[in-house]
Amino acid sequence: MRYLFLFVACATCSTLFAQDDPLSSWNKGASKSAIIKFVKVVTDEGSPNYVPPSQRIAVFDNDGTLWSEQPIYFQLQFAIDRVVELAPQHPEWKTTQPFQAVLEKDMPTLIKSGKKGLLQLVMASHAGMTTDEFSSTVAEWLKTAKHPRFNKAYSDLTYAPMKEVLVYLREHGFKTYIVSGGGIDFMRVFAEKAYGIPTEQVIGSSIVTEFQMRDGQPVIVRKPEIDFIDDKEGKPVAIQHHIGRRPIAAFGNSDGDLQMLQWTNESPKSLCVIVHHTDADREWAYDRDSHIGRLDQALTEAEKNHWTVIDMKRDWTTIYGD
Amino acid sequence: MRYLFLFVACATCSTLFAQDDPLSSWNKGASKSAIIKFVKVVTDEGSPNYVPPSQRIAVFDNDGTLWSEQPIYFQLQFAIDRVVELAPQHPEWKTTQPFQAVLEKDMPTLIKSGKKGLLQLVMASHAGMTTDEFSSTVAEWLKTAKHPRFNKAYSDLTYAPMKEVLVYLREHGFKTYIVSGGGIDFMRVFAEKAYGIPTEQVIGSSIVTEFQMRDGQPVIVRKPEIDFIDDKEGKPVAIQHHIGRRPIAAFGNSDGDLQMLQWTNESPKSLCVIVHHTDADREWAYDRDSHIGRLDQALTEAEKNHWTVIDMKRDWTTIYGD
Repeated sequence: MRYLFLFVACATCSTLFAQDDPLSSWNKGASKSAIIKFVKVVTDEGSPNYVPPSQRIAVFDNDGTLWSEQPIYFQLQFAIDRVVELAPQHPEWKTTQPFQAVLEKDMPTLIKSGKKGLLQLVMASHAGMTTDEFSSTVAEWLKTAKHPRFNKAYSDLTYAPMKEVLVYLREHGFKTYIVSGGGIDFMRVFAEKAYGIPTEQVIGSSIVTEFQMRDGQPVIVRKPEIDFIDDKEGKPVAIQHHIGRRPIAAFGNSDGDLQMLQWTNESPKSLCVIVHHTDADREWAYDRDSHIGRLDQALTEAEKNHWTVIDMKRDWTTIYGD
Repeated sequence: MRYLFLFVACATCSTLFAQDDPLSSWNKGASKSAIIKFVKVVTDEGSPNYVPPSQRIAVFDNDGTLWSEQPIYFQLQFAIDRVVELAPQHPEWKTTQPFQAVLEKDMPTLIKSGKKGLLQLVMASHAGMTTDEFSSTVAEWLKTAKHPRFNKAYSDLTYAPMKEVLVYLREHGFKTYIVSGGGIDFMRVFAEKAYGIPTEQVIGSSIVTEFQMRDGQPVIVRKPEIDFIDDKEGKPVAIQHHIGRRPIAAFGNSDGDLQMLQWTNESPKSLCVIVHHTDADREWAYDRDSHIGRLDQALTEAEKNHWTVIDMKRDWTTIYGD
């Protein structure tokens, strides 16, 4: 009986401790400490580095920072699946690249089609419909598509430790934003449910849209034309355009995030963080030589500037929270 | 003594009543009732038209809706004042239109220079500097410039009744946005102080900006090139781009706001409001024939769709709150 009591008491204690720790999926170490210390300093009204809530802006890349991005960006998989689905209406795709490569699952040819081919895929799958129709299409895909390695919905491959950081920052008065190379209207479909980030705090790449009246009903139509690429130098530009103030915290994982980190780094007190993919067993391991999410220049800059570099394998007790 | 007591009691009552009335600068009437009734319905959890807080988006035009826009848009006055200030560095302006017209206060020639001339003025006054430098310039101008008719700072010519609506909506869980043809970075300088609207909820026209590293310091530079005109069909497009969901309330005053009102009007339950300038004594009176803030097609549509049309003279007890 006494043992039972002790067991129950201990179980309760451990639950209590877990609840006390807002970053319970993080092992003790420099990364976890840096995040907690930063939040303490900028929210302490007595600190010279105190930042009022209205200025507590935190920006997060999405692919490779909040969810996985291997073996190909999930949004590219959506484009591929969509092309397959639309193929019956486009018999010409059987003999037109890059569509032929998609239909024949010929990855080398698809990769060889380069940026131009990729753009053609994106336009065929992302344009020519209203914004409402596009959102429904993405929502439907997210419900049914499975990741080839994990056989799970793509929206289940979000990082539990990063979601803890999002909640932790919001609980301390931060506004959390996504600033990603991914499509703005693609990410908005799942950002609220997956990350607690509302549509108006999602910033991304976009295609041109147009307002039209159709039989007296207003619609916004997606056109096959690039509007803005939210990557590299584009990220600080988009941050200024959408938010209008400099973030004090930025989280990225690749060279595409370097300028966003540099821009954030200029705040009097800032937290710049890189998610380093070091866990081939539980996720993937890649950096300077990867064709997806290449982390080379930003890793060098991180060392120079003493930014926080998360070592996935060492720092995270779990990847997806299961 | 009893009379004195009654007087004091009444004064207290009237203060209490004024505090109880969130729209105390509004006379009783259809406009005030429509606003209050709408807020009651969408915030009542028992109502079939209940809207959860995350979807309570309200958008406001700025020029002519939240502050005055006569005799010329205040931002155009800023451009003119800036050209005068910069003229010593540009001797060529003495003989180049539209700059010559500005320097000689030759309004007919300035107006004749049309859109092209206006654009040249905007580029000369709004581009060629960093975003931080531009903000400082606008802030300095707002501190010193005076409106020609009222001899007051431009930011004092904001409408007190509309500011009550902003507060009233926010107190009921709404997110309030500016969606204006005015410059996004121009309005951000005063929107927080004047309206309680943070920079990230200001949407407007923009010029192209570029991220640069200057001697190791990151800056965002304003380029002399139009990026986006947030007017007419542009307004719903910008709303979708920045907010990603349809507003349930929209306030405008001119044909430039028509598409934003139409877009909002499609919400299951919506409030569409037009500020009609009917008060030549306290402000200005203009609508269908005005060259600034023309309200013609939108007024016709308002009647057809039973939108709320504010009659400034009849509905507002004060314009600027003094």
